[in-house]
Amino acid sequence: MRVLMDGVPRQMRTLWWKAGGVVEMIDQRELPGKLRILQVRDLRGMENAIREMAVRGAPAIGAAAAYGMVLGQRGDVTANAAAERLRSTRPTGRDLGFAIDHMKRAWEEGQDLLTAAQQYNDRLAEECAGIGRAGSRLISDGSRILTHCNAGALATVDHGTALAPVREAHRAGMQMLVYADETRPWLQGSRLTAWELLNEGIDHRIIADSAGGWLMRRGEVDLVVTGADRIARNGDSANKIGTYEKAVLAKENGIPFYVAAPFSTFDLGLKSGDGIVIEDRSEAELLEFGGVRVAPAGSRAKNPVFDVTPAKYIKGIITEFGILP
Amino acid sequence: MRVLMDGVPRQMRTLWWKAGGVVEMIDQRELPGKLRILQVRDLRGMENAIREMAVRGAPAIGAAAAYGMVLGQRGDVTANAAAERLRSTRPTGRDLGFAIDHMKRAWEEGQDLLTAAQQYNDRLAEECAGIGRAGSRLISDGSRILTHCNAGALATVDHGTALAPVREAHRAGMQMLVYADETRPWLQGSRLTAWELLNEGIDHRIIADSAGGWLMRRGEVDLVVTGADRIARNGDSANKIGTYEKAVLAKENGIPFYVAAPFSTFDLGLKSGDGIVIEDRSEAELLEFGGVRVAPAGSRAKNPVFDVTPAKYIKGIITEFGILP
Repeated sequence: MRVLMDGVPRQMRTLWWKAGGVVEMIDQRELPGKLRILQVRDLRGMENAIREMAVRGAPAIGAAAAYGMVLGQRGDVTANAAAERLRSTRPTGRDLGFAIDHMKRAWEEGQDLLTAAQQYNDRLAEECAGIGRAGSRLISDGSRILTHCNAGALATVDHGTALAPVREAHRAGMQMLVYADETRPWLQGSRLTAWELLNEGIDHRIIADSAGGWLMRRGEVDLVVTGADRIARNGDSANKIGTYEKAVLAKENGIPFYVAAPFSTFDLGLKSGDGIVIEDRSEAELLEFGGVRVAPAGSRAKNPVFDVTPAKYIKGIITEFGILP
Repeated sequence: MRVLMDGVPRQMRTLWWKAGGVVEMIDQRELPGKLRILQVRDLRGMENAIREMAVRGAPAIGAAAAYGMVLGQRGDVTANAAAERLRSTRPTGRDLGFAIDHMKRAWEEGQDLLTAAQQYNDRLAEECAGIGRAGSRLISDGSRILTHCNAGALATVDHGTALAPVREAHRAGMQMLVYADETRPWLQGSRLTAWELLNEGIDHRIIADSAGGWLMRRGEVDLVVTGADRIARNGDSANKIGTYEKAVLAKENGIPFYVAAPFSTFDLGLKSGDGIVIEDRSEAELLEFGGVRVAPAGSRAKNPVFDVTPAKYIKGIITEFGILP
């Protein structure tokens, strides 16, 4: 992805292996205020980075876990123990388990694990570029695109999923307007999606999570694209809480709603979305803001952070193999 | 409304006239952290209190404007000038114009304006009590009720609109669970609705604005009730941004969606919601939080703060005269 550092554009990934046995990653908790590079030196550090959302977004979590397995091997943990410790960090996303299973096989087959992890990351970047090419044909000059959460380069290792077609269309010279849902409680939209779009020079507006439906009704949205954390065999897709609402509203207003995800997000063992485990996170994410209490002392919150969008609301799934209807 | 002060329950209104020519009001910008009473001494002060949302909620704005006309008269402003200055403070709500027209007539007829304003406020409180009685029959023991924004006592002078039936059912001994949408960007739900429910001792959970649809889909919501800022003759209702989304999602999930409002919120001169002016507020409300920037410097926001819910999504409108289908 393109990142402006003191006004100078640089190409950067979300995370990478650094000589000396260290994984470096953009600390997504600090964006957009600070571009801090977090150094992860062991398996425990990678578990924390994933659980505490220094790295987030299903494909990026998978990519981080691949390197986590390398750190586990170097830390003399068994393949099973490393796999289980990483697996327990976040429950909803599919790529995490996909990456761990892939790396565990490589480990047990005696392959060089660092090479396997590098290949996993490179392949994911290529897949996202493929999603960009496949999805860009849904966009035309002047398109107004709504997205929820961050399904950008920061949620993968590069290019993004939902943002990959936007990047590709931008490179091809098209003008677009992207509406970024701010995405409470973690503000992935206003903090991360806006940051990526700003760095790419793509016109965008941050909106309240409640505003997208109204913009659709007023005829100000042409296309809705989001990422996914886990996709069942029938197309039901788990993604950031609020995705289901946007899909229903898009359908009600006759606007195409697409999910963009690499094939590693598909969970073919799941018949439908009913079996997907939805993570509930801390009440404090809603009750506090920047460590300051916003709700009355004594009030409680309920904080499911994903939902499942039934396939009937999804016009198609944009993958590296093309758009699946 | 019931307000606990150092643990001792007291009855309090949202705003009131105090001997000495001063209007006092709960400063809603400071809740829930501080129960600060703002003193408004002249017309200019009342304009600011409304525009800057020390008082908000369509019926409460009307009640404040009624007292504002009294302050105008005492400040030697003409009836027309006072009316126009108050009218220009907020564009979307209906009660503001209703109250101003009512008071202007009283002024021109030479009535005692303070008495007229007191009567306006008392009548509004009674109307809201009537809404409570009419709406409480929609609630049964164990009901799980979702509401958006704050349509409580703070949005009127007492009892509330959407919260009036909840208060009435609670007084009758029913147990309920209220889901309060936090309601970005101003957090009326987590700051004000939660504060009112806590003071009444009613069980509640604050949820992200994006989560309500998912709770409906999971079968965890029995009833949705919101307030309204302006209702057209055909039933189309303007209310806080996000109300339209919740109405569509309620319909999609077979859950009854009601609007609660006094008759002063009806704009019978409007055939449909198409003619309602939607207020856009400052981008900073989304880009900053507590004065701290959350979005990247250079990113822009779009902040429409109301939307219009077409009548077809509304099962009924709860008024002081009963429930209109």
